[in-house]
Amino acid sequence: MKRIWTTELAQHTGQRIRLLGWLHRLRRLSNVSFLILRDAKALAQVVVEEPALVERLAQLHHESALAVEGLVVAEPQAPGGIEIRAPRVEVVSAASAPPPFDLFRPSIKAQLPTILDHAPVALRHPRQRAMFRISSAATAGFRQTLRGLDFVEIHTPKIVGAATESGANVFAIDYFGRSAYLAQSPQLYKQIMVGVFERVFEVGPVFRAEPHDTPRHLNEYVSLDVEMGFIHDHRTVMDVLTWVIRGMIEAARDEASDAISLLGATLPDVPPEIPSIHFAEALEMIYQETGQDARREPDLAPEHERWLGEWAQKSHGSDFLFVVGYPMVKRPFYTHPDPRRPAYSNSFDLLFRGLELVTGGQRLHRHEDYLSALASRGMSADPLRWYLEAFEHGMPPHGGFAVGLERWVARLVEAPNIREAALFPRDLNRLAP
Amino acid sequence: MKRIWTTELAQHTGQRIRLLGWLHRLRRLSNVSFLILRDAKALAQVVVEEPALVERLAQLHHESALAVEGLVVAEPQAPGGIEIRAPRVEVVSAASAPPPFDLFRPSIKAQLPTILDHAPVALRHPRQRAMFRISSAATAGFRQTLRGLDFVEIHTPKIVGAATESGANVFAIDYFGRSAYLAQSPQLYKQIMVGVFERVFEVGPVFRAEPHDTPRHLNEYVSLDVEMGFIHDHRTVMDVLTWVIRGMIEAARDEASDAISLLGATLPDVPPEIPSIHFAEALEMIYQETGQDARREPDLAPEHERWLGEWAQKSHGSDFLFVVGYPMVKRPFYTHPDPRRPAYSNSFDLLFRGLELVTGGQRLHRHEDYLSALASRGMSADPLRWYLEAFEHGMPPHGGFAVGLERWVARLVEAPNIREAALFPRDLNRLAP
Repeated sequence: MKRIWTTELAQHTGQRIRLLGWLHRLRRLSNVSFLILRDAKALAQVVVEEPALVERLAQLHHESALAVEGLVVAEPQAPGGIEIRAPRVEVVSAASAPPPFDLFRPSIKAQLPTILDHAPVALRHPRQRAMFRISSAATAGFRQTLRGLDFVEIHTPKIVGAATESGANVFAIDYFGRSAYLAQSPQLYKQIMVGVFERVFEVGPVFRAEPHDTPRHLNEYVSLDVEMGFIHDHRTVMDVLTWVIRGMIEAARDEASDAISLLGATLPDVPPEIPSIHFAEALEMIYQETGQDARREPDLAPEHERWLGEWAQKSHGSDFLFVVGYPMVKRPFYTHPDPRRPAYSNSFDLLFRGLELVTGGQRLHRHEDYLSALASRGMSADPLRWYLEAFEHGMPPHGGFAVGLERWVARLVEAPNIREAALFPRDLNRLAP
Repeated sequence: MKRIWTTELAQHTGQRIRLLGWLHRLRRLSNVSFLILRDAKALAQVVVEEPALVERLAQLHHESALAVEGLVVAEPQAPGGIEIRAPRVEVVSAASAPPPFDLFRPSIKAQLPTILDHAPVALRHPRQRAMFRISSAATAGFRQTLRGLDFVEIHTPKIVGAATESGANVFAIDYFGRSAYLAQSPQLYKQIMVGVFERVFEVGPVFRAEPHDTPRHLNEYVSLDVEMGFIHDHRTVMDVLTWVIRGMIEAARDEASDAISLLGATLPDVPPEIPSIHFAEALEMIYQETGQDARREPDLAPEHERWLGEWAQKSHGSDFLFVVGYPMVKRPFYTHPDPRRPAYSNSFDLLFRGLELVTGGQRLHRHEDYLSALASRGMSADPLRWYLEAFEHGMPPHGGFAVGLERWVARLVEAPNIREAALFPRDLNRLAP
């Protein structure tokens, strides 16, 4: 008998089918019992009338793996309007202990650290795993959009001989007796690859040894990286990012709508053109409207990002806002200045509902500009010689961006802690599971 | 004027178009010169008659980035039957030095270490980059096939608290003062995720601190990992692998046929059913046919893999051969034994043209079986407690496999050294670029 998914039941009404999944719950009522079977996709209600079978199921711990054959019947009172009757149940793999918490309740009744400690079980909860359906869909949408725009997928090394972004916050490795580091980003490599494929993207882990224990930080996360050449300036990159964000949202809608609604999230609309505001203008406006004077600050405070998010919503009806032209002083050495206002950069942040979601911009492309930028920051060019070689050989104007996957998903569903969007998060204290 | 790719020229015959790319070569003949422009996809021949322009181009180093506008003309004598005439050339970014080797020759005239040292330039060579078009296509085919079979993409941590496969050959990290390691594979995590999504896959880096300097080893590579539940035994996994291999080859054919032919490679056909042979039978046959007695060996010697590859070709007309039932003694602790012959395992290797390409099999799924397997190997269960928790809660029979991406591409195009299939390979001595 062909096995089907619980989500396919409606197409098989009146037929006997086979389901494979886990004993999510057994509800024993006086004259009938309900076995709730969870498979990888959803739940199914199985009506159990035979007393011997009820007894047999009652002996099993929750989460035992089962094969259930039965008749699919339309039943308006059942969840989803469908139930399975006259079941035959085979125990595929009996659980040897009860789960550390009830997985059948609407949400897990435990604190986040306990949930994370027991991730192998907790991730089976429909709400928990919904996050990772969205994550899988978003990644697919990211890739599909970029492949449609002739971007080539690359894989760059995570073990590197020199820190990518700065010497701070890198994890050190013993590499056959030599010093090496975990890559903080694929930045330098993706720029090199612009000389090869003009347009590249990478989905891969990045590592930040930031000793912060906050709901917003992970020490390892998945970075969705893009880099492209022959751009006009950072605005060309912003156009591509707009397409990419739209593709990621579309994919979540197409492939993970059940997960989205289970988590009570609302997918945002991406306006035809995302509004944008210059960094200096933004601070001036905040000063005019609120009296808070941050006009000499090099970055936006979280409260000002929130304020701008509300402003974008009010004045443009948009969940998204580009802030462009951040001061050069806070941006990394490869940042391209604004030719007309060199204290500001050709860079941007994309705010989503008042929170920074993506950082990107135009990079330097002339070899001599790199040498000056490094010198003026007191950085040595020598450890970067291999990278700088690319710029001696005709690197076009280029730029790109990076989206943190966990951050994107967490913000989309408004999860209070980013750890909920990582299967097995790594933080200051957490190395297992 | 709209920019087009060099591969789109034929559709624009008679029109003026704009190309963006690199000065691949300038051929000066007595009465006409040819500028060969390379973009991310291919080459275009630009006819330059104006002496001042020829002089201007001759001043530029190869690899300078250019924008070329001109008229597309069908010309049977031109490569591909198309050339650009009456060009206007704008220098987008002049190279400041000549390339370390000629990129316009059919292949780079330098030894592999020199090529790898100068990867930022070498990767621009059409042959070099062709490898990574195939790689990008193969990865896309891998994902597409699995998504079509309801597999969910996951991302598991690369920083781990305990070695995945064994205590040997792991890179150690200083994790905020604690010991941690780089993951040798996502094995333990992908198994856990079978309890969540039943079917999962991951594309990500893995790290092996093997101190071998051979043409077959990389210390960091991209692993294409699959794991699935509710299987009958390893043969269910072999069926999925057959689909996946077929999908990867189809994708290379659809998306990277130019790259395949540039490298002179031939894509294999995957037979409807890949032939398979038991490990013990294979050694017996080798003994009968060659007199070489390896019947007490726990693994296949490379020469025996080659012999079997030829045998599969001769007797089944297949580039592929499954060898099943490797002895338990050489397989990792999570390997499921063959219930009928417990000294042999429910595992397989897939040989491709006489070389091992994929390893996979059925895993243990009962908690008590893990405890015995670990105890009989003298391994402590304690560092794996977080992993073993999954098996207390109804883990169905499951299995999976892993394909090394670089190995797959290298073998497909018969590259003599696997380093050619890694953008920026990591080996015993190489940490940069």
